[in-house]
Amino acid sequence: MGVFPVVPRCAVRSRWVPLRWLTGFHGSTSAQQSSTNALGLLQQRKQPPGGVPRPWDSRSRSRRALHAGSSSLQEVMLTSERYGVRRLPFSRVSDGDVAFFEQIMPGRVITNAEELRPFNVDWLKSVRGCSKLMLKPQTTAEVSQVLRYCYERNLAVNPQGGNTGLVGGSVPVFDEIILSTVLMNRITSFDKVSGILVCQAGCILEKLNEYLEEQGFIMPLDLGAKGSCHIGGNVATNAGGLRLLRYGSLRGTVLGLEVVLADGSALDCLTSLRKDNTGYDLKQLFIGSEGTLGVITAVSILCPQKPKAVNLAFLGCQSFAKVLETFTTCRAMLGEILSAYEFMDERCMELVERHLKLTSPVRDSPFYVLIETSGSNSTHDEEKLNNFLEQAMTSGLVTDGTVATDEKKIKTLWSLRERITEALTHDGYVYKYDISLPVGKLYDLVTDTRARLGPSAKSVVGYGHLGDGNLHLNVTAESYNHSLLDAIEPFVYEWTARYNGSISAEHGLGFKKKQFIQYSKPREAIHLMQHFKAMLDPKGILNPYKMLPSSS
Amino acid sequence: MGVFPVVPRCAVRSRWVPLRWLTGFHGSTSAQQSSTNALGLLQQRKQPPGGVPRPWDSRSRSRRALHAGSSSLQEVMLTSERYGVRRLPFSRVSDGDVAFFEQIMPGRVITNAEELRPFNVDWLKSVRGCSKLMLKPQTTAEVSQVLRYCYERNLAVNPQGGNTGLVGGSVPVFDEIILSTVLMNRITSFDKVSGILVCQAGCILEKLNEYLEEQGFIMPLDLGAKGSCHIGGNVATNAGGLRLLRYGSLRGTVLGLEVVLADGSALDCLTSLRKDNTGYDLKQLFIGSEGTLGVITAVSILCPQKPKAVNLAFLGCQSFAKVLETFTTCRAMLGEILSAYEFMDERCMELVERHLKLTSPVRDSPFYVLIETSGSNSTHDEEKLNNFLEQAMTSGLVTDGTVATDEKKIKTLWSLRERITEALTHDGYVYKYDISLPVGKLYDLVTDTRARLGPSAKSVVGYGHLGDGNLHLNVTAESYNHSLLDAIEPFVYEWTARYNGSISAEHGLGFKKKQFIQYSKPREAIHLMQHFKAMLDPKGILNPYKMLPSSS
Repeated sequence: MGVFPVVPRCAVRSRWVPLRWLTGFHGSTSAQQSSTNALGLLQQRKQPPGGVPRPWDSRSRSRRALHAGSSSLQEVMLTSERYGVRRLPFSRVSDGDVAFFEQIMPGRVITNAEELRPFNVDWLKSVRGCSKLMLKPQTTAEVSQVLRYCYERNLAVNPQGGNTGLVGGSVPVFDEIILSTVLMNRITSFDKVSGILVCQAGCILEKLNEYLEEQGFIMPLDLGAKGSCHIGGNVATNAGGLRLLRYGSLRGTVLGLEVVLADGSALDCLTSLRKDNTGYDLKQLFIGSEGTLGVITAVSILCPQKPKAVNLAFLGCQSFAKVLETFTTCRAMLGEILSAYEFMDERCMELVERHLKLTSPVRDSPFYVLIETSGSNSTHDEEKLNNFLEQAMTSGLVTDGTVATDEKKIKTLWSLRERITEALTHDGYVYKYDISLPVGKLYDLVTDTRARLGPSAKSVVGYGHLGDGNLHLNVTAESYNHSLLDAIEPFVYEWTARYNGSISAEHGLGFKKKQFIQYSKPREAIHLMQHFKAMLDPKGILNPYKMLPSSS
Repeated sequence: MGVFPVVPRCAVRSRWVPLRWLTGFHGSTSAQQSSTNALGLLQQRKQPPGGVPRPWDSRSRSRRALHAGSSSLQEVMLTSERYGVRRLPFSRVSDGDVAFFEQIMPGRVITNAEELRPFNVDWLKSVRGCSKLMLKPQTTAEVSQVLRYCYERNLAVNPQGGNTGLVGGSVPVFDEIILSTVLMNRITSFDKVSGILVCQAGCILEKLNEYLEEQGFIMPLDLGAKGSCHIGGNVATNAGGLRLLRYGSLRGTVLGLEVVLADGSALDCLTSLRKDNTGYDLKQLFIGSEGTLGVITAVSILCPQKPKAVNLAFLGCQSFAKVLETFTTCRAMLGEILSAYEFMDERCMELVERHLKLTSPVRDSPFYVLIETSGSNSTHDEEKLNNFLEQAMTSGLVTDGTVATDEKKIKTLWSLRERITEALTHDGYVYKYDISLPVGKLYDLVTDTRARLGPSAKSVVGYGHLGDGNLHLNVTAESYNHSLLDAIEPFVYEWTARYNGSISAEHGLGFKKKQFIQYSKPREAIHLMQHFKAMLDPKGILNPYKMLPSSS
């Protein structure tokens, strides 16, 4: 496995061998360095001769496109068959309906089966619907017209953004009309003084980020699917991702929304104000409602300044206890510049190496952590990181590691963590669990699941946003297998509930998790949610079969 | 006015005379200082010989107590008379009701008129109710019992925390039962790894902060009323305050709530997880609902680490344009350590000097700004601040100023800004406006209002959280005067609406602003709010006459 030249480990400093194959970060040039300097020990390593991943910029998009467009879609079993769902008594799309839509948005009404195919299947190829109609509105007024018509005709609607969801929430279960935001991709305004961006719901996250970077700002969220996902979908699913530790959740950064309700009426809460306490904050109900309460058509969002300096450390830890201790240490020492603390276990590393041919500069550790800093002064940030690394090394928290400040190398290192999801899909059918737990218990769930499943699972891996208490537990098998599913569920949910965790930290409930909501929410809360749904969408036409269990 | 010894202004550096009467901050000791150093020019000034305010710690509480308990309460006109409100057909409290409550919470049922008096009047002494009964539950179960009973009996209830609200939302309008959280002041848990605090709703904000500081953390919000206000009330009113710029709004930091609904049923959403996407985020509806949808009984909140270094700069600017430019400059240069950017006009300064005998070390400027940094490394922070101050000085953005790192001196400087509210109450009757606007327009509203009112107003002042786009516009008069009110309203609201601002940035609507909601929210949104209210509180017993206009 070793593609790097052998580097002698520093005898005095235990197994700590920070690398300097990534240019730009070396404490010895800094006037501000402390007298003892962990990075003074850096050994130069050559650029790895193989296994360099594709450039980050195009990766996500091409990856998603690859899967969504692959020829194996035929193999995905219909959701209704796999899960034995019964179709609700919505009307079926008639020729007259198609003619009506063609009239209000000529050329943007898709009925061709081949063209519809990728939009009926989720990215994981785990669920498949059989919609016969996709609409591509360009304006809020068109969304209004569509929904008013569908509401009157009792036609079910599946709002769809980039179709990158992981719980089956973004594709139809039966023949729901797919209402795509793909053509609603206009940026309305950006104010450089306040940092507030207003845009349509179909803008792609990565495009928005590129636009903002040109003006010295960034989006407050970042996630692996950035090249495909739509901001409207991000908001509808309350996406978390990689920057939450630093910039907080969308509940704080989304300042305004424009939403079209089930009956077609538009709700304009698209304000661009940081503070507004005039009445109930209605937009919050739509954030994370997964398209079941309304269709988000525009978003106003507060964007942070682009950090002037970004550093990344990729480290090896010998136990999960050390991963935790490294976290509390770096949080205290890096303070306000800490922008990500991610972890992955060695099985994740095996998968990205085997399936994606990536190569890690840090090896032979049961756990790896990725620490990112983002700040306004590179000298200060490097000094803080330096001090932390020395502390982590001398106290034995980490045993190997590398640091990067160069943008390309940072992205290369990030890909080891970000592409785990992709590597897993190459390993077979993936049972995905996205769990919030008290950080101290986080990895016990992986260990217990692994022990429970034994050889019946191909891989059982754990990784995620440790800084947010968010574990991604994934189990793979050669193909979908109902008895394996029965061995995992409800075991994982019961385990999570025992420690007051959440059975969906950031992915949502969608179609695949909706029947497990009671593991994380009390009965009274679920009843109240059903009341809200009934009030806002009395006919239940918006994203049916998703998020909530049927009314009881 | 000059209490300081005259200090020669530096000829080369224009009017910039930073002070070093505040110990601990001097760039020349720092190894990291840049070659040109604004603070190298600091002139030593003596501690001001007079006008030192009371210690910060006890100020807020004593201030609120002073007002709430003063003998002038008799003079406050009954709300029902001043505003001509009609009592809704709720039941009246009977002897049997009192007996029932006395049975479930013996000794915690207040019926004595004298004892009730301060809880019927708001802190501003602008509204007064005539409640004859106050209940002091200690547990959520007791709140449940009370509300179940009140709901059945159709008795109206006014939930009350520290009674520090500024829009008349925290006191009864008629004879509503006051349901006080004063005895619900228990801290349930604090986890040092995650920084998550769980506590009852009646905990006083300042007490919580003191408790957290002992453990190396702080509350994510801070406001002038900290010594009296309850965390439940903070959440119920979505309080903003002084730390919002840095730590974001309560919508992001409140992780869980326990709420008792109007019918007495308890809703347990008191999770302690940073991420939880299982269903609609119900707690959001109660944040900022001003006690009209449910009674918050417990809160789970994410607390940041206590910064290791805090610096404060208090600066003078010659125009509001310079205030704005100073903001964008310091945001870029201070980056992640900027924790507050407040401004006040010279009339505010006159009021705190005249009524509170405070003395400012910076004088003779039309505008003053207060810039706070909070970070993890004092050397780095001082260097960043230093660089910024030099830039601000050489480019003529600021013309005078002082800096402080010592905790006591920081608090002394903060009091110049924080005690404006208090100073205003000594100036006469106060018409308060709490407006969100695009920052560029912020001060124009003050100028226009001042021009409109002319000599009919005693003072027209502007100050606030500029970094959040939040202006506090205040008008004083010798006493309440209906014709002056007519000159201000709806002028101020129309002006605000014209620039897409909010007529209540952080104070809420309460009783005094509820009829103006339509200046900031469209009709459809208000109707939806009324639907939510009707769904959650069909009899309307919770904090009636508040927040929403009557159903139409």
